Amino acid sequence: MTATDRLKEMGISLPEPPQPAGSYTRAMRSGSQLFISGQLPLVRGVIQYGGVVGGDITADQGQEAARICALNALSILEAEAGSLDSIRIIRIGGYVSCSPDFTGQAQVINGASDLFAAVLGERGVHARLAVGVCALPLGASVELEVIAEIEA
Amino acid sequence: MTATDRLKEMGISLPEPPQPAGSYTRAMRSGSQLFISGQLPLVRGVIQYGGVVGGDITADQGQEAARICALNALSILEAEAGSLDSIRIIRIGGYVSCSPDFTGQAQVINGASDLFAAVLGERGVHARLAVGVCALPLGASVELEVIAEIEA
Amino acid sequence: MTATDRLKEMGISLPEPPQPAGSYTRAMRSGSQLFISGQLPLVRGVIQYGGVVGGDITADQGQEAARICALNALSILEAEAGSLDSIRIIRIGGYVSCSPDFTGQAQVINGASDLFAAVLGERGVHARLAVGVCALPLGASVELEVIAEIEA
Repeated sequence: MTATDRLKEMGISLPEPPQPAGSYTRAMRSGSQLFISGQLPLVRGVIQYGGVVGGDITADQGQEAARICALNALSILEAEAGSLDSIRIIRIGGYVSCSPDFTGQAQVINGASDLFAAVLGERGVHARLAVGVCALPLGASVELEVIAEIEA
Repeated sequence: MTATDRLKEMGISLPEPPQPAGSYTRAMRSGSQLFISGQLPLVRGVIQYGGVVGGDITADQGQEAARICALNALSILEAEAGSLDSIRIIRIGGYVSCSPDFTGQAQVINGASDLFAAVLGERGVHARLAVGVCALPLGASVELEVIAEIEA
Repeated sequence: MTATDRLKEMGISLPEPPQPAGSYTRAMRSGSQLFISGQLPLVRGVIQYGGVVGGDITADQGQEAARICALNALSILEAEAGSLDSIRIIRIGGYVSCSPDFTGQAQVINGASDLFAAVLGERGVHARLAVGVCALPLGASVELEVIAEIEA
């Protein structure tokens, strides 16, 4: 089954790739690696589930935010590679804006990891970093960075 | 002297590679690069030196935590590459859960850097990021990410 | 126009490459990629614009700090590659020490992104991560990590 088939089955249509929030580009290629800029939980330019996980919003809401970041990353991967079927996720970095006593960063970033695995199957399984930070651009609760590989 | 010899001389036996804390894998290969997922100061599944550096624990204790993260990363590198003697450390990212007035992140992450150099010699010297963050998974004081290279 | 010409036109002379702040090296090569260690806003060993963005200093001052980090990264890139004209910036990671209510991390890190584009032109455009953190080494307001590519 292709990634496109899986997305259809899940009832997901990928959004338009978001515009960068500063003087950089959404993705840069180096050899077979594709570096995707940090993605925020933006839907049509508006932050979803903003604020601090463990304060303003719950871990479940943070997980939803991570899932939206991952959808945005997928939209960029598809636009850059032509098709998601030539993509393998290598490493994701998940940054969770959270209260100092919050320890569920792994659970939050599972929202992104699970989506990649659901859409890309084996090629969606990746190495991962998940940390808590004190603030993110535009008041987002999650930011997600991705390194993928384009298979020849 | 091999890495295994150096470990013996230092009286260190590597732990079992820790299990991932979420929906991801412990390591992913891309070309000759090996991306190791963020490692916590876990010993047999239990966080050591938990809490906030500069608050709950001292910089020296944080350095011990970083050393445990590095041992866990080495155990994964050995399991993935078959032998530590084909490994070169390229880049490490050290994330220190700390109080806002703590400025000794470099000293803390030296606990990992020094171990890599001691075990791997020249091949353990690496580029590095060290930052302070407000919270880490499971209440850990340090998280360590590694990019290594497998030499042909 | 070469990078050296552009630097002259901008009235910039690159500093000496800063020394690492711990047990690591300033840069490590892996294939055609060059990993530059986290750079601080150091001028002759002294932190500029120290403190917390959105508290001790303004976003504009943080942007100046990011620019100094980028100059330090360029000095290392030139020293490692021999010439900036064989360098392409792939990915930068910008870490902003900020107050919990600060949301302008993108604006701050533009100080680095804009400098890379001004000096390197098309080859300075990159993928980017920008996050807020609670503390940085030596009390710096910004830390900047760079992955570049050396063109054959």
